[in-house]
Amino acid sequence: MERISIIGAGSWGTALGILLAKSGHQVKIWSILKDEIKMLNEEREHKDKLPGIAIPSNIYGTTDLKEAMEDTKIVVMAVPSKFVRETSKKVKEFIQKDQIIVNVAKGLEESTLLSLAEVIEEEMPDNEVAVLSGPSHAEEVAKDIPTTCVVGANSKSVANKVQDVFMSKTFRVYTSPDIKGIELGGALKNVIALAAGISDGLNFGDNTKAALMTRGIAELSRLGIAMGASVHTFAGLSGIGDLIVTCTSMHSRNRRAGILIGQGQTLEEAIKEVNMVVEGVNTAKAAYEISKKYAIEMPIIEQIYKVLFENKNPKEAVEDLMLRDKTNEHKKLDMDFNKTIEWYKE
Amino acid sequence: MERISIIGAGSWGTALGILLAKSGHQVKIWSILKDEIKMLNEEREHKDKLPGIAIPSNIYGTTDLKEAMEDTKIVVMAVPSKFVRETSKKVKEFIQKDQIIVNVAKGLEESTLLSLAEVIEEEMPDNEVAVLSGPSHAEEVAKDIPTTCVVGANSKSVANKVQDVFMSKTFRVYTSPDIKGIELGGALKNVIALAAGISDGLNFGDNTKAALMTRGIAELSRLGIAMGASVHTFAGLSGIGDLIVTCTSMHSRNRRAGILIGQGQTLEEAIKEVNMVVEGVNTAKAAYEISKKYAIEMPIIEQIYKVLFENKNPKEAVEDLMLRDKTNEHKKLDMDFNKTIEWYKE
Repeated sequence: MERISIIGAGSWGTALGILLAKSGHQVKIWSILKDEIKMLNEEREHKDKLPGIAIPSNIYGTTDLKEAMEDTKIVVMAVPSKFVRETSKKVKEFIQKDQIIVNVAKGLEESTLLSLAEVIEEEMPDNEVAVLSGPSHAEEVAKDIPTTCVVGANSKSVANKVQDVFMSKTFRVYTSPDIKGIELGGALKNVIALAAGISDGLNFGDNTKAALMTRGIAELSRLGIAMGASVHTFAGLSGIGDLIVTCTSMHSRNRRAGILIGQGQTLEEAIKEVNMVVEGVNTAKAAYEISKKYAIEMPIIEQIYKVLFENKNPKEAVEDLMLRDKTNEHKKLDMDFNKTIEWYKE
Repeated sequence: MERISIIGAGSWGTALGILLAKSGHQVKIWSILKDEIKMLNEEREHKDKLPGIAIPSNIYGTTDLKEAMEDTKIVVMAVPSKFVRETSKKVKEFIQKDQIIVNVAKGLEESTLLSLAEVIEEEMPDNEVAVLSGPSHAEEVAKDIPTTCVVGANSKSVANKVQDVFMSKTFRVYTSPDIKGIELGGALKNVIALAAGISDGLNFGDNTKAALMTRGIAELSRLGIAMGASVHTFAGLSGIGDLIVTCTSMHSRNRRAGILIGQGQTLEEAIKEVNMVVEGVNTAKAAYEISKKYAIEMPIIEQIYKVLFENKNPKEAVEDLMLRDKTNEHKKLDMDFNKTIEWYKE
């Protein structure tokens, strides 16, 4: 049994709380919203975010951050990406050096282009920061549907500790040293989901969508390598795995906004109709800027940028992608693959 | 303009013929079936396999293999996997040394566990053999829906030649030196599609399916590396790309058979109900044998084998997968990723 604090009572924070509580851990959930905490503590259900799912008795909700942070080993940061900086500043006041912070939010800080673990590390440089990511709809996790995730940390012992705490018979956790790759995949997959949605909106087929997903991940890998991540992470749970879940989900706002744009709506019209934050839109801008900064060719990101912000016709964007210069599938295959070197010499 | 022979008038052979003819190439299609060739030549439509799609006038059908093979540069082998050996023996009688053979069938030869390009190479050792694979439903290709594929060849100039011939504004072709990886992905993905179907049949969720797909590809990569393929190929169009198309298709027999097994039917009952060849079943046996031969840990393949051939309860199989020893996401990350080495030393 471990004592765990969860900062943020959205669907993902609450679902992880339920998962951990069912494994026998003692869980405290913090939210800034009094009504939300009252609902968790008294009604034992998060009626807005996870309706119909019981909150186990070993979960205790509080709006008092000091109380939430006291006497726990693991602090799970589960706030929306735009609140990570602000919340980190508050958490910092109560953090102990031996507390491990596990970030489960996905995204980039718009103003700095930093990943969220980097934001947390900037605010709390003395603490170990791990990340948890993978193909994981919150509702399915809360309902004990078999799910896999990967936890990244700079130190293997920290990764193993987090793995031990989260792993259960319905939640399998792998470890990885590649925090950077895990976070980039989680943040940038929304742009590819938007592209997949546009393809659906244009009435293209399964072939087109699979192409955008596979080549989209290839682009993200190229960028990731330039930023110090491992290519293999993008082929894993936090990369293509998470993208598969996002692109097949009917609930994905990115996909829905994409469909509307593919059907001919402007970005403004699509955002208005979806009526929620479409993270892929902001991330598309960030991804485009990062690709320029690192001078990485990212044709899908570039075309999405032009469709979203330069009113390019999506059909033309797809044609431009199809007719790009002929090329090989991987710019650089692994060095273990001896054939490659001979082949490229030809 | 190039002269091309297509051996086999199934849906994929015919769709590729239509694609090539629309690009202005002169295409001959061979089939052993007189009625099929008559239908193509006279009704200008393959009513059984691609109903409603016109056969361009620059496609000529013949049942005379000698005529089909005469005066062409590229010979596309598009017969079902179990006929590749037998058809190769026939094609061999008429083949010229300068003809490039492009295999587009997917599978393994059951008795030898050879890949299909290896079978063709055994029969026609003096010819260059290339393979073409990727996420590509035939009907979508025939209908000009944007599609991407990868062509593998031992020689880069051969790969480039095939790329030039097939590439069009709706069909984008990448090149690769990794024939082996391309063929393994295409053959073994059906086993993972069967697993994904079983998960659906058990009423598990998107999380579970994405986990099986991602970790399934990780297993195939491990096997591929042991067999001399490149890990990156499995993260590409012929690996995860093709798997995505197969797992999302309502028409996939492997997926349908999997759903029935997940719902409690025996293998025999499921095969009877699907009433067609379920390639993933035979491939599951082959994959299991190959994994033993190369001593590669393939937990998903192993559990599928037990469910199919040892009457293991699928629910228990999933539980066993979830509760395997705790591990890291990639047994061995790329050597460029410096962090890895330090991390695994810990």
